[in-house]
Amino acid sequence: MQWVKVLGLGLGGAALLGLGIILGHFAIPKGTDSPAPSISAPQDLDLEILKTIMGQLEASRIRENLRELSSEPHLATSLRDEALVQLLLQRWRDPVSGLDVAEASEYEVLLSFPSQEQPNIVEVVDPTGNVLHSCLQNEENITGEQAGPDVVPPYAAYAPPGTPQGLLVYANRGTEEDFKELQAQGIRLEGTIALTRYGGAGRGAKAVNAAKYGVAGVLVYTDPADINDGQSLPNETFPNSWRLPPSGVERGSYFEYFGDPLTPYLPAHHSSFRLDLVNVSGFPPIPAQPIGFQDAKYLLCNLDGPSAPAAWQGALGCDYKLGPGFLPNGNLTDSQVRVSVHNQLELRNSSNVLGMIRGAVEPDRYVLYGNHRDSWVHGAVDPSSGTAVLLELSRVLGTLLKKGTWRPRRSIVFASWGAEEFGLIGSTEFTEEFFSKLQERTVAYINVDISVFANATFRAQGTPPVQSVIFSATKEVRSPGPSDLSIYDNWIKHFNRSSSVYGLIPSLGSLGAGSDYAPFIHFLGISSMDIAYTYDRSKTSARIYPTYHTAFDTFDYVDKFVDPGFSSHQAVARTAGNVLLRLSDSFFLPLNVSDYSETLRSFLQAAQRDLGDLLKQHSISLGPLVTAVEKFEAAAASLDQRKSALQAGSPDPLQVRMLNDQLMLLERTFLNPRAFPEERYYSHVLWAPRTGSVATFPGLANACSKASNTDPGSEAWAEVQRQLSIVVVAVEGAAATLRPVADL
Amino acid sequence: MQWVKVLGLGLGGAALLGLGIILGHFAIPKGTDSPAPSISAPQDLDLEILKTIMGQLEASRIRENLRELSSEPHLATSLRDEALVQLLLQRWRDPVSGLDVAEASEYEVLLSFPSQEQPNIVEVVDPTGNVLHSCLQNEENITGEQAGPDVVPPYAAYAPPGTPQGLLVYANRGTEEDFKELQAQGIRLEGTIALTRYGGAGRGAKAVNAAKYGVAGVLVYTDPADINDGQSLPNETFPNSWRLPPSGVERGSYFEYFGDPLTPYLPAHHSSFRLDLVNVSGFPPIPAQPIGFQDAKYLLCNLDGPSAPAAWQGALGCDYKLGPGFLPNGNLTDSQVRVSVHNQLELRNSSNVLGMIRGAVEPDRYVLYGNHRDSWVHGAVDPSSGTAVLLELSRVLGTLLKKGTWRPRRSIVFASWGAEEFGLIGSTEFTEEFFSKLQERTVAYINVDISVFANATFRAQGTPPVQSVIFSATKEVRSPGPSDLSIYDNWIKHFNRSSSVYGLIPSLGSLGAGSDYAPFIHFLGISSMDIAYTYDRSKTSARIYPTYHTAFDTFDYVDKFVDPGFSSHQAVARTAGNVLLRLSDSFFLPLNVSDYSETLRSFLQAAQRDLGDLLKQHSISLGPLVTAVEKFEAAAASLDQRKSALQAGSPDPLQVRMLNDQLMLLERTFLNPRAFPEERYYSHVLWAPRTGSVATFPGLANACSKASNTDPGSEAWAEVQRQLSIVVVAVEGAAATLRPVADL
Repeated sequence: MQWVKVLGLGLGGAALLGLGIILGHFAIPKGTDSPAPSISAPQDLDLEILKTIMGQLEASRIRENLRELSSEPHLATSLRDEALVQLLLQRWRDPVSGLDVAEASEYEVLLSFPSQEQPNIVEVVDPTGNVLHSCLQNEENITGEQAGPDVVPPYAAYAPPGTPQGLLVYANRGTEEDFKELQAQGIRLEGTIALTRYGGAGRGAKAVNAAKYGVAGVLVYTDPADINDGQSLPNETFPNSWRLPPSGVERGSYFEYFGDPLTPYLPAHHSSFRLDLVNVSGFPPIPAQPIGFQDAKYLLCNLDGPSAPAAWQGALGCDYKLGPGFLPNGNLTDSQVRVSVHNQLELRNSSNVLGMIRGAVEPDRYVLYGNHRDSWVHGAVDPSSGTAVLLELSRVLGTLLKKGTWRPRRSIVFASWGAEEFGLIGSTEFTEEFFSKLQERTVAYINVDISVFANATFRAQGTPPVQSVIFSATKEVRSPGPSDLSIYDNWIKHFNRSSSVYGLIPSLGSLGAGSDYAPFIHFLGISSMDIAYTYDRSKTSARIYPTYHTAFDTFDYVDKFVDPGFSSHQAVARTAGNVLLRLSDSFFLPLNVSDYSETLRSFLQAAQRDLGDLLKQHSISLGPLVTAVEKFEAAAASLDQRKSALQAGSPDPLQVRMLNDQLMLLERTFLNPRAFPEERYYSHVLWAPRTGSVATFPGLANACSKASNTDPGSEAWAEVQRQLSIVVVAVEGAAATLRPVADL
Repeated sequence: MQWVKVLGLGLGGAALLGLGIILGHFAIPKGTDSPAPSISAPQDLDLEILKTIMGQLEASRIRENLRELSSEPHLATSLRDEALVQLLLQRWRDPVSGLDVAEASEYEVLLSFPSQEQPNIVEVVDPTGNVLHSCLQNEENITGEQAGPDVVPPYAAYAPPGTPQGLLVYANRGTEEDFKELQAQGIRLEGTIALTRYGGAGRGAKAVNAAKYGVAGVLVYTDPADINDGQSLPNETFPNSWRLPPSGVERGSYFEYFGDPLTPYLPAHHSSFRLDLVNVSGFPPIPAQPIGFQDAKYLLCNLDGPSAPAAWQGALGCDYKLGPGFLPNGNLTDSQVRVSVHNQLELRNSSNVLGMIRGAVEPDRYVLYGNHRDSWVHGAVDPSSGTAVLLELSRVLGTLLKKGTWRPRRSIVFASWGAEEFGLIGSTEFTEEFFSKLQERTVAYINVDISVFANATFRAQGTPPVQSVIFSATKEVRSPGPSDLSIYDNWIKHFNRSSSVYGLIPSLGSLGAGSDYAPFIHFLGISSMDIAYTYDRSKTSARIYPTYHTAFDTFDYVDKFVDPGFSSHQAVARTAGNVLLRLSDSFFLPLNVSDYSETLRSFLQAAQRDLGDLLKQHSISLGPLVTAVEKFEAAAASLDQRKSALQAGSPDPLQVRMLNDQLMLLERTFLNPRAFPEERYYSHVLWAPRTGSVATFPGLANACSKASNTDPGSEAWAEVQRQLSIVVVAVEGAAATLRPVADL
């Protein structure tokens, strides 16, 4: 272009050159979008706006949102679930407080429901066929909300139908080790019904493990020791406290993977290829049914056989025995347990709802914020406490947007996912449908599922790059309650660790697959986080909040016991909102990639400490991994310096964009879709599932664990070497991504 | 930022806002880089500079480059190959005409060489063990360059050692159909030696197919009908013409995949995991050896048995028979052929050389331009004709760079790949090592391997987005020779097609896996092209230039017969340079994504026409694919409109960057690493290998071909549906990438 030449007066590379650029006309999206303030390419986070937003997030509105969201059961694809889709669309399309655009999108997914004609039943049957005891088919209607056609009876979603009958055994948590222990004790498992308690192993894993030992059916209950700090009497439980009533039953998905079971890696559109049912993997191999501890007590306290190990004992008030079968006294002699499961698989249309605020300057950079919408029953805590916060946050942002006061630098996408409870289905289908676009453009994914488990402290899980932005946000929000502490200062009292870089800091948990962040981090390699308010662990050892997935998880439960006054909800809204705004509005992305250095170093040290000898015995050197980690550390430190230098000047937006791309895409470099072919969706070489107890590179740890009992030349040892190379290449690739972009 | 607020006077979204931006200081890389002209973020292609560059590319310098490069044999990892690494580094580090930075990087790769102690021999042996005929072990030393320790004797790289002996059969081109035909004619194949000719099937495939029929060893020769337009006498061949002398033998890799055989998906660093040899796939299962047509004539013209079909006849001057065994007349009665192969696998260090010109404005966007360096013998045509052009182009650009006259907008990376002849090894290892960085940042890959096959016409292969930039470049360069035509106008006379969009245009070929572009397009999804000057197909039907992979591919061969005066080399340098400059310097990336609309539509129409009935019989609808293609067409057309609107104004650099990212990343959206798990590296759902003759979506076509003989409910038909869904998702994802970035 000639004018450039005319303007360029040979000032040399270091000269500052002022050039007029034309911006507003193009940077603000056209059409029906709301007016926006004048913006410029170097637009940065406006701390005044941030403060305004923090101030406008109202606890009382969150409470009202929750009341509405949890007023009726809203199981995935139910009429009420669909009504909530409309509610979300209406809120996000509101002319005064809505977003730029909102849409629902449907997937046709395979869900599992109990039969309406034939209820699932668990019975004790004597040798002549008389039923001596029937477990409750529904929870006790204590508050008037536990009955009705919309309350789905307790069941184990995706457990196959069947009516196995056999002697009862007690199998603790149903882990592989638990069944081995029973076998070691000489308990014959073939054809039995195994009574297990929640915790320890995943739901589906209990049935998978049981089936390996010939067990014919699985019962799962919640022990008061695990959920109620031992208490179990009606006067000690809801509605008299936050504790689980004796009839309460945890529902849940027993599917071992996530995403629609019929369409792995493909979005579940009507026309999509679907697996034949016989080719579906991940469903429980044998019937399973959850029951309350009231019924579990009857079964367990009447069991015969040797006493269970001390670690297997719970709080049902009797000595837990192993079985098989019931005590010979009384009329239970020779009685068996019959589990009648009549679950049905159904193709259903499940909706995601998406709402967007278009970015003013970089509309092609997305900050995603999501939660699921579907519950098992009323789902006041799970997931409506998160959705109530989501709606309040979108209202405040939408209002500023519609007023023309504010528009984010980058695009913000709010998501209400469908059918999460069945296996993160809505979010997974979304990532399958928009794989490329999301990988290319997404800055981070913020998940706020259950926003308040309890009102004691903030907690967060995430990958290292989001640690610093969470710290920044939590330092700016006051902790709920009487103290003057920041969220951060309160958090560090509850969860902390000694960082080799920062000293004592709050400890960020790592991301498993417990909510909708899973496909984003594991499948797409997008930096993700899950944030919530939670328990004081010095006051309760409950596995999770007691009414989890029961018909007692209601508005009153939250209002009276979980967060009276909703100040913890408000605190989560402020913190999540603060994180969101920092990600969407900061000129420089607040992703601190050098925090991965500490993680990599600790993974490496753990490998050296716990696997080093074993590897050395097989002539496998960790040297290349040491080198790779050192390269990463150097590259990250040097990037931090370049970033500081840029920040100290008046950098041009294109340069900041280039640096931001390095920050955004770092997480992607740890993806290797060929690393773990047997682990569906898991491609992140640092956060894939790890079986052992060593906090290190999962592929390496898992391979070592498999190889440890094999001969030196085995395929298993070759796999150890392959996994080591995979992680070396990933870390080297990550370092290359952080180095100056024009380095060879 | 406060000053933004002050400046922003509420002008509204459509107002033009002039803002000063600071640029030069940051945009020009620091350090030892050469001075550069003042640059600005909207820096665009400078047509004057382009013209200068075109004018400075000298035919005589290309000739001198070629003389030096081809002065000695430079087989991969040979001393001379390593000397050329130094030559490249010296050129690219030259203070007057070098690049910003140049480095060599080594991989430890598995190559295959003939034994120096035990030469490979092909003999005719009579029943008592007397050798009646020995094929030449080396080509005839006609010009003084066919002998010497650095001339590797003809061999089939990666063919296993062994000394099979058996009756000779003639198997045409060694395709699956050829062996079926032999079987149909009642020729007993078990234990035979199959004589095949080059062409039709890949090298390795001939051995793979033969082994399936029990053949014990394979000979491969070049028929004068295929390479010399029938001529074969010494006075008709080199050095008297460009034709192949009777003793010439085509060497080549018989490995079926590409990349280092021991380290699929991993860079072949010293410490990388390597497969055990027993687990390596893709090597020929039986010994194989190439021979010249002089020896082939002796063998073939003495064969017994029925006459070969007319299509199997060649130009050796006798009636080709099928065997098995020789004619009973003469002393060949009951004689067999013994093939002694003593190839050895060796781990060798092979280098890539990379040179970079850092981009002034967007250094994190790479335009890659590469060719391999290794040859079989002197390799004047293959690959030095490409390297000679590469060096001239880098000299001209480097000189402007060092003078401070020019610096590209984006970074340019020149590459000299190692060990291509063994299976694109250097380039593949490079893509494995820098997978993430390259995928995120590479605009396009330009491959110029053999730059001049012949001097009649330009030809190009590439994916649709590069068609337009090749057209632009070829319209600007004069065709070599006496005519006044542009390269484009000459090209269209030789290769053309009727486009539904443009009418008659030159036809761009599609990319297979014949050179180093393969890992870039198939594994990384980077828009790629391969360009060259080539034959007048009305004048020769040679399969490839006659001395291909022989010891006759020398400087004199090029200088006298291929391109006297080197004007075709110059034309390729200008065209490739023009394409390179357009990609590196244009403000708007010259990738025309909407040209994919025509391709997708034609693939769809082919599917409808040739597979539609079959699919309908199995109740498989192409409807979703029709919809997806329509969405792509609409999205591409709308993007073109937005681009035109932007171009008409004075767009700001960040906006152009966002649009350019859509253009650059479109090709990536067609990648699916899980689409073809059995096809190593092939992840591009449009350009993966296709077995049938229908030019359509390869996954769908291949699956249909496999399913066509199976029952309706078969797994093969399920795979058809899966492949259909895979391509639908890819095309829908591509459309989503092209739509406005802030659309939901």
